[in-house]
Amino acid sequence: MGAIPAGFESEAGMLLIGGRRADALIAEAGDTPLFVYDLAMVAERIRRFRVAFPGVSLHYAIKANSFAPLLSAIAHQVDGLDVASAGEMRMALAAGMDPGDISFAGPGKRDEELRAAIDAGVTINLESEGEADRALALGRARGVRPRLAVRVNPDFEIRGSGMRMGGGARPFGIDAERVPALVRRLVESGADYRGFHIFAGSQALDAAALIEAQAATVALAARLSDAAEVAPPLVNLGGGFGIAYFHGEAPLDVELVGRALHETLAARPAVLGNAGFAIELGRWLVGEAGVYLTRVVDRKTSFGKTFLITDGGMHHQLAASGNFGQVVRRNFPVAIASRFGAAGEEEVSIVGCLCTPLDRLADDVMTPRAEVGDVVAVFMAGAYGLSASPQAFLGHPPACEMVVAAS
Amino acid sequence: MGAIPAGFESEAGMLLIGGRRADALIAEAGDTPLFVYDLAMVAERIRRFRVAFPGVSLHYAIKANSFAPLLSAIAHQVDGLDVASAGEMRMALAAGMDPGDISFAGPGKRDEELRAAIDAGVTINLESEGEADRALALGRARGVRPRLAVRVNPDFEIRGSGMRMGGGARPFGIDAERVPALVRRLVESGADYRGFHIFAGSQALDAAALIEAQAATVALAARLSDAAEVAPPLVNLGGGFGIAYFHGEAPLDVELVGRALHETLAARPAVLGNAGFAIELGRWLVGEAGVYLTRVVDRKTSFGKTFLITDGGMHHQLAASGNFGQVVRRNFPVAIASRFGAAGEEEVSIVGCLCTPLDRLADDVMTPRAEVGDVVAVFMAGAYGLSASPQAFLGHPPACEMVVAAS
Repeated sequence: MGAIPAGFESEAGMLLIGGRRADALIAEAGDTPLFVYDLAMVAERIRRFRVAFPGVSLHYAIKANSFAPLLSAIAHQVDGLDVASAGEMRMALAAGMDPGDISFAGPGKRDEELRAAIDAGVTINLESEGEADRALALGRARGVRPRLAVRVNPDFEIRGSGMRMGGGARPFGIDAERVPALVRRLVESGADYRGFHIFAGSQALDAAALIEAQAATVALAARLSDAAEVAPPLVNLGGGFGIAYFHGEAPLDVELVGRALHETLAARPAVLGNAGFAIELGRWLVGEAGVYLTRVVDRKTSFGKTFLITDGGMHHQLAASGNFGQVVRRNFPVAIASRFGAAGEEEVSIVGCLCTPLDRLADDVMTPRAEVGDVVAVFMAGAYGLSASPQAFLGHPPACEMVVAAS
Repeated sequence: MGAIPAGFESEAGMLLIGGRRADALIAEAGDTPLFVYDLAMVAERIRRFRVAFPGVSLHYAIKANSFAPLLSAIAHQVDGLDVASAGEMRMALAAGMDPGDISFAGPGKRDEELRAAIDAGVTINLESEGEADRALALGRARGVRPRLAVRVNPDFEIRGSGMRMGGGARPFGIDAERVPALVRRLVESGADYRGFHIFAGSQALDAAALIEAQAATVALAARLSDAAEVAPPLVNLGGGFGIAYFHGEAPLDVELVGRALHETLAARPAVLGNAGFAIELGRWLVGEAGVYLTRVVDRKTSFGKTFLITDGGMHHQLAASGNFGQVVRRNFPVAIASRFGAAGEEEVSIVGCLCTPLDRLADDVMTPRAEVGDVVAVFMAGAYGLSASPQAFLGHPPACEMVVAAS
């Protein structure tokens, strides 16, 4: 399995999260399964970004985790929130974000979603000419000047990224060649033109690939702006910063990416001279800060193999089960939270309580001997965890979620 | 893509479900996305089972779809409901099922779940010796004689089944060699021993493989009963009947399976002479009866490829997106419901509204030309659909669900 993120300590064999004992957190929440998000780890990520990317705005893509207390804490530390539905937009507004600092991307925005965004003053990242037509018409009908940006489908992708979002036919954004005409049309229609959103991939761990993609993104934004003869107020360079989930993966060198972007921006073409630049991050900000705690309810052997059966599972942690975009299932880092730091004594498979062979949390991992009542920690659970899982599947109780603020 | 299930007609180009126009059903439900379940198709499946498997009890595994109106309709037509959590047990009881005809399987039953089942008089399919200890202790503590069956981890699987649930080290059930001792202990402890639950796989389309597995299951039940010197009241033979989702798959010949089982049971060993036999089906009963209806909100081209963007997606239909146990994504059968039966005119990709490249409903399928406002039907959506999907992901509105009763 992959490495447990740095910063997790223990006290008398009990995992500490944000300086608090896992068993005390469970008692406070009432029960397992429980997601705990360490706000100090998120704040540290934000601080690290600020140092590495001076002058670049930081947006949080709330699709990664929209748990209200977490979102509210992040909203006060970043420059913008990126949302992907009217529901997420309402969460972002409820978190106290200024509507002018919220942008709404997503390939299938319904009219009522566009209307809600226009009424709220949120920037809409247009995904097609048809969506542009609808947004302009809705703005006129409501007597409001809509805030509109153009999402560009780049003709490149981040090499080696976990999910490709550019470099060919995609449902996202507008092919680059058609973008200048649309930008001119938006400006001529009297819209409040906000610039570009260019997202070339996600979950990238290779700094060189990210550096190359960011340079290509800046060049593309300049080329499109020159062709449109319109300077963009903001260029959202996308995100794509990955985290190292699995064995053999190395963390992204974000400082290297930051230095390269600094050079790229220092040498940027004149048309981008007054533009702001933003990077939109989700997983990298919150993924490592989350721990999923689930209790062992049974311990059994079958054909000589030991299974720990927990009260959680894929209904809360679909990604750890290997059913969230993965082709081959690999183990997220896990540990026995109630015997944290103890030496591995046996090889076990850890599964969830769902009555399906899909519900696997860790296959053939070395752990200290765990008994019924012990607590399993699944790390890297802060992004695309509970909200990205089939919570209603098999009718089990919902998971609890909480933030810890102390460091 | 695979074949659209038989029985779907149209009226003036509009798909009919249970004899009702898709647009009228959407109007009645209020909006898309909408799941519609045709009760007549489910009833026809039940009728077909009854004819093919005379004398064999039919159980419904409600994990496939526990939508209350559907569950309530099915509960009155089958002999038992199989549940996988205390939550599902409450749904089964609310559907009017007699507790004595409900059985509760699942590898991670918590004490409060065991307690609830014992109090309700529901049969617990024991998954381990540890669970047996807990159930017996809880029965004693409550002064109740618990209804207990033993789930056996068979030493074989259904060849070619979509999900392996036997034939090696598994979290499900108890290895066969340890079962006789447990059965004797249950009887000696005064429990109400209910027999065996033996589940060797699911989503099998090969009749010969199912026939072989059922014969092996009956033989195993006899061997274990002989060794225990206890006759089982009921042998739940599992399920595993598959449906043909994909191109090139042929439907299961259930009549052939039924004839073979009839012969197997006619020649069964003496220890099973008074046993009842049950088959537990989920997907085969309800999968083809469900249609997911989602509206086209955008139509766009990218790099020469046409995309239809819908207001639904993987948050309602994870399996169709290829992220529910599949290694390689293949297209579920789809159609333009509002142009049903029209000739294919163009190749399109149909995607959901989620801002992730995982959200694919159909890649490169031939359809009549569809515009914004047209309705897409995703077939085979009756099993492992909404309840098995990450409904909260990206904050979109929930899907509606409804049953149609007319045929």
